[in-house]
Amino acid sequence: MTGRRFLKVTLAYDGTAYRGWQRQRDPATIQEVCEKALGRVLGEAVTLHGAGRTDAGVHALGQVASLVTARPIATGGLARGANSLLPRDIRVLAVEETAAGFHARRSALAKRYRYRLAIGRILLPYDRLYAGHEPRSLDQPAMGRCLAALVGEHDFRSFCGAGSLDFAALPPRGTRRRILAASLAPEPGRPEILAVELVGDGFLRHMVRNIVGTLLEVGRGRRQEGDFAGLLAAGDRRLAGPTAPPQGLFLVEIFYQPEGLAAFLATSQTFSTTPAIERELP
Amino acid sequence: MTGRRFLKVTLAYDGTAYRGWQRQRDPATIQEVCEKALGRVLGEAVTLHGAGRTDAGVHALGQVASLVTARPIATGGLARGANSLLPRDIRVLAVEETAAGFHARRSALAKRYRYRLAIGRILLPYDRLYAGHEPRSLDQPAMGRCLAALVGEHDFRSFCGAGSLDFAALPPRGTRRRILAASLAPEPGRPEILAVELVGDGFLRHMVRNIVGTLLEVGRGRRQEGDFAGLLAAGDRRLAGPTAPPQGLFLVEIFYQPEGLAAFLATSQTFSTTPAIERELP
Repeated sequence: MTGRRFLKVTLAYDGTAYRGWQRQRDPATIQEVCEKALGRVLGEAVTLHGAGRTDAGVHALGQVASLVTARPIATGGLARGANSLLPRDIRVLAVEETAAGFHARRSALAKRYRYRLAIGRILLPYDRLYAGHEPRSLDQPAMGRCLAALVGEHDFRSFCGAGSLDFAALPPRGTRRRILAASLAPEPGRPEILAVELVGDGFLRHMVRNIVGTLLEVGRGRRQEGDFAGLLAAGDRRLAGPTAPPQGLFLVEIFYQPEGLAAFLATSQTFSTTPAIERELP
Repeated sequence: MTGRRFLKVTLAYDGTAYRGWQRQRDPATIQEVCEKALGRVLGEAVTLHGAGRTDAGVHALGQVASLVTARPIATGGLARGANSLLPRDIRVLAVEETAAGFHARRSALAKRYRYRLAIGRILLPYDRLYAGHEPRSLDQPAMGRCLAALVGEHDFRSFCGAGSLDFAALPPRGTRRRILAASLAPEPGRPEILAVELVGDGFLRHMVRNIVGTLLEVGRGRRQEGDFAGLLAAGDRRLAGPTAPPQGLFLVEIFYQPEGLAAFLATSQTFSTTPAIERELP
């Protein structure tokens, strides 16, 4: 009998052409395209479990998916084989052997999302698929203070996408999530791109995009900072701002090791102080 | 009688979907799309003269085109009106009033091109349309020395695209061009992107891409440095390397003012020394 292998597949993709990560009736999902390519290399049907269910148009720099197989193919060969079959807007960055029971979503400690905002007057052509656009000047310090208020465990119901609360499979923790770090900073080498980053133990549907949409209202002076903080307590989606467009959002990284997460939080430019970060560690 | 106005139009575009800048039988050229949009705002047929004839798939961060009109529309209104009609992969960055006789190509002192090389093992999805890819490790110091040898006035016939020498309208200077600065450096904030920049008083067809293609052969150790320098003397296109793919090339900037050019050259990371730069100034 051959032992079952639990593989961790790290993926980057440009979500522009896809209906999101998760398999559905429409075949143009990233999960389906990846399952086909990996399945062809393995010579068997494959089911991938993704760590983050990115929406249509959302990108990934480091999505992680898990699969279980008994086939003896080497991890490097599987990665190269899949890349030779995948379209160029999806790449397997790595395939790694993991411990029995590894599941990309259930084993994840935290996820890191980045929302890129192009803040120049004109949205440059090569940013149009990879950033939201905000031509008005923004009160960035106010936005930073709002982000800081998100750090910690809160009920994020107000920032939850419409329809999400009908999901039969809402996890036991409901709409409570823990934000471990939040930051707002120009992207290195691109001062006209403002990057909002959130690291959390989980995210509700549309949560990052709803936070960014509401944050932009504060930045434009259309919403008070106190009102933003009050949204968490209110628990009413109708009070939050609009959902920021998908093309600005990137799933950057999934954390599985406490050491890796702690190291990231210790060095990240974050609004949470070091003691707070330590308290938030799982 | 209304005076004729000479307008300078600065453009950025993603060249992926186009057959290059220059109008031809195929209508999907950037020149044609821009002429239509500007013409519709002006209410008259418009002829644009572009500073650089970028090839199919080549991008621009600061292409310049000139037009002559008698219409009294404000420059800001013309820019905004054109942007409302143009597809999102072409943007008018600015429209400015210039002196009588201004011609985007003939008035240009120098042009700046950048070739972006993704040097990671795997080409990331969001770089695939905006960079060439070189997965092998490169001898960057050797490549830098080759670039330094290009600075000055030379006959660049060896790096001239096939077919270019049949052009009836070859300018009086033939295939001689002056390179004012050349550099090779990681892109700020993106250590896995190596940017080759060339500033020159003019470029032959495919010249930058042929230089980069040949430079890569040196970087990979397949061609000697001395052989690279010898190419300039040989004047034989068959001896140079392959043409690097178009998607890595960006027309960055056109220089019209000696002061602006001098300021750029004085601060740029370049292989030419300061005295050499001063000698090369027109």
